[in-house]
Amino acid sequence: MFIPGLIERKREGGALAAGEWRDLVAAFHAGDVPDYQMSALLMAVFFRGMNREETSALLDAMVGSGSRLDFSHLGLPVVDKHSTGGVGDKVSLVLAPLAAACGLAVPMMSGRGLGHTGGTLDKLESIPGFRTALSLEETRAQVERLGVAMIGQTPEIAPVDKRLYAMRDVTATVECIPLIACSIMSKKLAEGLTGLVLDVKQGSGAFVTDAARSLELAQTMIRLGEDRGCATVALLTAMDRPLGRACGNALEMEEAIMALRGEGPEDVVEETVALAVEMLGVGGAGAWARGGAEGDRVGGPGGRKTAAPLNRPAGPDRAALERQVRETLRSGKAAEKFQRLVEAQGGDPKVVEDPSLLPQAAEVEVYYAPRGGTVLRVEPRAVGRAVVEMGGGRTRADSEVDPTVGFVITARPGQRVHTSEPLASIFARDAAGIERGRSALAEAISIGEGEAETLPLVAARVTAQGIEELA
Amino acid sequence: MFIPGLIERKREGGALAAGEWRDLVAAFHAGDVPDYQMSALLMAVFFRGMNREETSALLDAMVGSGSRLDFSHLGLPVVDKHSTGGVGDKVSLVLAPLAAACGLAVPMMSGRGLGHTGGTLDKLESIPGFRTALSLEETRAQVERLGVAMIGQTPEIAPVDKRLYAMRDVTATVECIPLIACSIMSKKLAEGLTGLVLDVKQGSGAFVTDAARSLELAQTMIRLGEDRGCATVALLTAMDRPLGRACGNALEMEEAIMALRGEGPEDVVEETVALAVEMLGVGGAGAWARGGAEGDRVGGPGGRKTAAPLNRPAGPDRAALERQVRETLRSGKAAEKFQRLVEAQGGDPKVVEDPSLLPQAAEVEVYYAPRGGTVLRVEPRAVGRAVVEMGGGRTRADSEVDPTVGFVITARPGQRVHTSEPLASIFARDAAGIERGRSALAEAISIGEGEAETLPLVAARVTAQGIEELA
Repeated sequence: MFIPGLIERKREGGALAAGEWRDLVAAFHAGDVPDYQMSALLMAVFFRGMNREETSALLDAMVGSGSRLDFSHLGLPVVDKHSTGGVGDKVSLVLAPLAAACGLAVPMMSGRGLGHTGGTLDKLESIPGFRTALSLEETRAQVERLGVAMIGQTPEIAPVDKRLYAMRDVTATVECIPLIACSIMSKKLAEGLTGLVLDVKQGSGAFVTDAARSLELAQTMIRLGEDRGCATVALLTAMDRPLGRACGNALEMEEAIMALRGEGPEDVVEETVALAVEMLGVGGAGAWARGGAEGDRVGGPGGRKTAAPLNRPAGPDRAALERQVRETLRSGKAAEKFQRLVEAQGGDPKVVEDPSLLPQAAEVEVYYAPRGGTVLRVEPRAVGRAVVEMGGGRTRADSEVDPTVGFVITARPGQRVHTSEPLASIFARDAAGIERGRSALAEAISIGEGEAETLPLVAARVTAQGIEELA
Repeated sequence: MFIPGLIERKREGGALAAGEWRDLVAAFHAGDVPDYQMSALLMAVFFRGMNREETSALLDAMVGSGSRLDFSHLGLPVVDKHSTGGVGDKVSLVLAPLAAACGLAVPMMSGRGLGHTGGTLDKLESIPGFRTALSLEETRAQVERLGVAMIGQTPEIAPVDKRLYAMRDVTATVECIPLIACSIMSKKLAEGLTGLVLDVKQGSGAFVTDAARSLELAQTMIRLGEDRGCATVALLTAMDRPLGRACGNALEMEEAIMALRGEGPEDVVEETVALAVEMLGVGGAGAWARGGAEGDRVGGPGGRKTAAPLNRPAGPDRAALERQVRETLRSGKAAEKFQRLVEAQGGDPKVVEDPSLLPQAAEVEVYYAPRGGTVLRVEPRAVGRAVVEMGGGRTRADSEVDPTVGFVITARPGQRVHTSEPLASIFARDAAGIERGRSALAEAISIGEGEAETLPLVAARVTAQGIEELA
């Protein structure tokens, strides 16, 4: 295998054969392909793309580089959600315990902050003591016992993806549909899922800002999942503004706890409910028939077998699923599930009752409207970048993340505001952070005259069969 | 400096500021930018190009990464030639001593074989004992004493270029005009040149086979040189067939010695003379007025100062320069200069009188015309690749080069041949090499009916002012 020749072929717009992708990934995994060749190839892929066969071959090679979980003995639908990443997106923190409380097995594997977006792992770790680095064995045992685990990518899961992802992050090759699709799906398929819901962000704060491309990303992942026996649907959701009010790790954790207790901002709750309904939907008959599990032990020997997801029936009444989800939230079962999860993973479970136990910022300052008018935009990228620069994300792979910094932005697009009305609070380590936060908000929040144009919170549902507009 | 942001900006078609290129190269030189980021950036540059300011800034940063020679105390024009690389191109071996014998200071820095093309260093090293790895100090002293040195890139000269070049070679980012131009010019400008002649190859055997792109490459380098006070012109020459008859290191050395003695193939002599005239031309008044130096010591304290190359007069009578060059060849002064050069660099000077002292191939076989007709093509890439595969070039960076192998191809495009007429000799290490050589010649030499279409040997002269057709 002559690597420069493969890079050149891709650079010139050609395709690599399935066997070439397989051998290349194996050689990279074995340390026989230097990073600088792989990064050059990935940049060529960025410009030239990959065809269906190439994407499939790369995905299979990535999954095959590591271990796969298997929960088939539970007799339960095994479902996860994946978001393409946004600002203020704390949905996973609410959704995983909610879906488990509705009867699904949820081995949720999440990531860290990337670029201007936050990461579920960083948010979870704002809870004192919380461990996201569970072993595969611990994950397996916890999902059996609680129905849910929230973990990072373990070394055994798609190890090649882990290396490629780290490299893409620092070589500007993240925003490439087949590479994004393979990276996400390699981890998800290794979790042993029977169903997967994709939350594909649209708008200026999404990684893929072009609507047609975000749809293409969704369809690519759906095809890759369905081809491999994992029922996959996507919701296209809004990321032209931050989701909810809080941006920053501990601040978002607190907001997620509020949502679990039924006190969350409406957009966070509505998007979480919509995704939970889809998780139950792809879960098939086994899930919704089961309803909320009372005890912790789910499935197990003798547990009911789930319907094969690809042969699933026309689907339950979506309104019924939504009622089930809202009732599970209202009943406190989702919050309770989260509390048990926190405890199981070494965190202080008291944070669920008292979020003030979360770490607090040294400096807090209110940000006031510099003029009156209509809030036209709250630009998520500017907000997300500022959180990173204030210490809440990584500028290098080994950066320490400060959980306390960030924003609570109460101003929403469309809202009328007066001069000097409070729009947000800035949470920082020091005066310089406050200053950075202030200039970010000045950039992010546009106030003027006219109509605020916003995307619908949940715009469409995408399946292998097509696109259903929801808004 | 946030490297992924720079890569992303280039990827999206933007430009890096001059200061960003400078800081990036400095950080790369210091080991603070990993290779995988640089290779991804170079691939993005491959797709997006660089504007004039970027190319200038990269060049200056590359030159600035190392030492610069300074021959200004000699009071002589300091001129080099660079070829974009071809098959059978032994011009440097003749030209450097010829130009020095005409009164120029020639610190010629050359490369090794690359891809299907040969390298001047490999050819020089076919002379037993010849050292191309002179230190900067040795080079300086030899140019002062003899007027000429023929060396490889020293570690002090543009060290960043050396690293980038090695990386580009294995990441399919070689064929990119601004990167090629910066790589070449960084070394040339570090030589302390007052003038530079570029031999830009055209045709199927050139690295850049597209005529418009090879012209763009020439014009890019001319602008970079002239902007920095180095008078630069280019000749566009033919590489749709091998130059001369010999291809292979010792075989080409022998042919070069023949040319120095006035017995060389016409095309080698004519191209060399044309390039020597240009070297004297860019040398300016100081060179041609001086004429052939009799003694070895050139310039020195009190030596005449050369005219500033950018303010050079309309230029000497080119016919007069050509007469001077041909007379210097005819007189034996060029051959004598080469002999002194060989001796000074540790080689056996007797090879100039007796080229049979060069290493000889173990196996020699004549290749006969498989049919009668007109020689339509002698394809240089097929010939060059075969030389490499027969052991005369490198398939890995650490390959040993066998100086003895190669071809002497007497058939020329346009020539009428009979069946079984000798067309070439194959020189190899063993029977397998002979076989490889035979199949390469069968592929390279097309015989048929019709007209052979060939490029003019010297098609045009390119200066900062424009293009002058010569053929």
